[in-house]
Amino acid sequence: MRAVTISDNQLSVAEHPDPTPGAGEILVRVRAAGLNGADLLQVKGAYPAPPGSPQDIPGLEFAGEVAALGPGATRFSEGDRVMAIAGGGGQGELVVVHERQAMPVPPALDWPQAGGLPEVFTTAHDAIFTQCGLKPGERLLVHGGAGGVGTAAVQLGAAAGAHVTATVRNANLRDQVKALGAHDVIDPEGFEAHGPFDVILELVGAPNMPANLKAVNTDGRIVVIGVGAGFKADVNLLAIMGKRASLRGSTLRARPLEEKALTARAVERHVLPLFERGALAVPVAQTYAFDDVQDAYDRFAAGGKLGKIVLTF
Amino acid sequence: MRAVTISDNQLSVAEHPDPTPGAGEILVRVRAAGLNGADLLQVKGAYPAPPGSPQDIPGLEFAGEVAALGPGATRFSEGDRVMAIAGGGGQGELVVVHERQAMPVPPALDWPQAGGLPEVFTTAHDAIFTQCGLKPGERLLVHGGAGGVGTAAVQLGAAAGAHVTATVRNANLRDQVKALGAHDVIDPEGFEAHGPFDVILELVGAPNMPANLKAVNTDGRIVVIGVGAGFKADVNLLAIMGKRASLRGSTLRARPLEEKALTARAVERHVLPLFERGALAVPVAQTYAFDDVQDAYDRFAAGGKLGKIVLTF
Repeated sequence: MRAVTISDNQLSVAEHPDPTPGAGEILVRVRAAGLNGADLLQVKGAYPAPPGSPQDIPGLEFAGEVAALGPGATRFSEGDRVMAIAGGGGQGELVVVHERQAMPVPPALDWPQAGGLPEVFTTAHDAIFTQCGLKPGERLLVHGGAGGVGTAAVQLGAAAGAHVTATVRNANLRDQVKALGAHDVIDPEGFEAHGPFDVILELVGAPNMPANLKAVNTDGRIVVIGVGAGFKADVNLLAIMGKRASLRGSTLRARPLEEKALTARAVERHVLPLFERGALAVPVAQTYAFDDVQDAYDRFAAGGKLGKIVLTF
Repeated sequence: MRAVTISDNQLSVAEHPDPTPGAGEILVRVRAAGLNGADLLQVKGAYPAPPGSPQDIPGLEFAGEVAALGPGATRFSEGDRVMAIAGGGGQGELVVVHERQAMPVPPALDWPQAGGLPEVFTTAHDAIFTQCGLKPGERLLVHGGAGGVGTAAVQLGAAAGAHVTATVRNANLRDQVKALGAHDVIDPEGFEAHGPFDVILELVGAPNMPANLKAVNTDGRIVVIGVGAGFKADVNLLAIMGKRASLRGSTLRARPLEEKALTARAVERHVLPLFERGALAVPVAQTYAFDDVQDAYDRFAAGGKLGKIVLTF
């Protein structure tokens, strides 16, 4: 099979042996695979894939058709449309994944949407609901509301009855984030004046933390899932105590199979029904053919877009 | 009535009008009242009592007999032995508290033990169970294991089937902390080498945070309830993300009545039965007669003791 390949911090498309599904696994013929920030880090050598995942093929999410079943795999049949997150290897013509990490693709979604769904919606759902227990009537702040996880979080928060405020640096994208369901879309500068917030989804990093602690409500929860702007945070413990607030962090990639499977079940139960009734969408900024992978990565790195960059196969 | 009184950052015993119980409140004739770190801060003017509590009478906890019932109070009868936490005012001959904040005193406890129980056991129980969900088989680290909250947390953790490690700076006190149920009692220096810990109870403050983040386990929880050594913490957000850890903080004093009442119900259900069957004790380092309040505060501030300093009335 052919796959996006990282070699000496460069991207190319190269031949690899076809992967074989083991016990409980499925082989998927990939039709679309979304790009994520972790892919850029991995190309730079800064974020190696976890053990057991291909080290030289990037790709944390994909959608495609089941091409073969490993021994004992029973959840899907050949030809079923599935999507999944993976520790790596999603950006190849074929990929192997455990059947319990895979989810069915709702009929309403085309391949690019399905290929750009798993990572960001699983991450956003896990962070704001599983980790932070966001409830109807609460106030949610989404930092980086125009990004992949941001657009997912804005929609999920609004669909769950929360009041959603999103920070968006690029003024040209604010109307589109508002159209996704955000009640307020604001400049990141001085965001703390718009609080208090019960849940804060931090996608930017350490520089936001002092203002996050000012903006968080009593019993509020801050969850950090991105630190592109820095990871060494100044944290005022008295503020955390006085507000009985919590600061937590999360990554999906390093989790063991059983925890990834649990997140997939949570998305199946609580997110896919919202896609089926049209309450959620996967904004796709642009698709690129597999062979134009460098263009796709360049476009992703340039920023200033709303929604996902997706490779198509 | 006479009460410990703060005036111009000095302690004395002075006359005050008798308090009157309002709707749902009880008047308690105080027999014993424990000292806490917050009292020292309040004398210095650094930690004023919350609105609605006496501003010039310290005392976050007390035990005594019900002397009168306010309108509609039904939980206790005159003469009942009760104990409670309060926003302030506990160190007087009489104190008024809402009946839903009060708890019955187990028959096995004498007055000094009962007067030194509520604040530290409620704080420790709330932090390690309600906030952090400590479970049997998990590993608990208690910083400052010889202090009031520390001795409570060590006993509660051991009684709940956790493996308890306590840091104790004063080598002379380590055997006593071990006798309370700690499986390991260690010097604070280099504590992170003894991890990983699932729950870390932080009673010292910011200087411990970098090592706490090294010592915390995957899915671990750090709860900060004391910052005497500093509150400006350096927090590595990548460590929090990678371990899916959480950092939270808590104070009891600022909570509204209904939340204080909930903590009292939790202690009644989950802590007092352990006292009744002899699984827990309140270590009392020394008692002082009410009129020797300055000696009591001096002894408390000097440290190096195991357990509570309690005023008796």
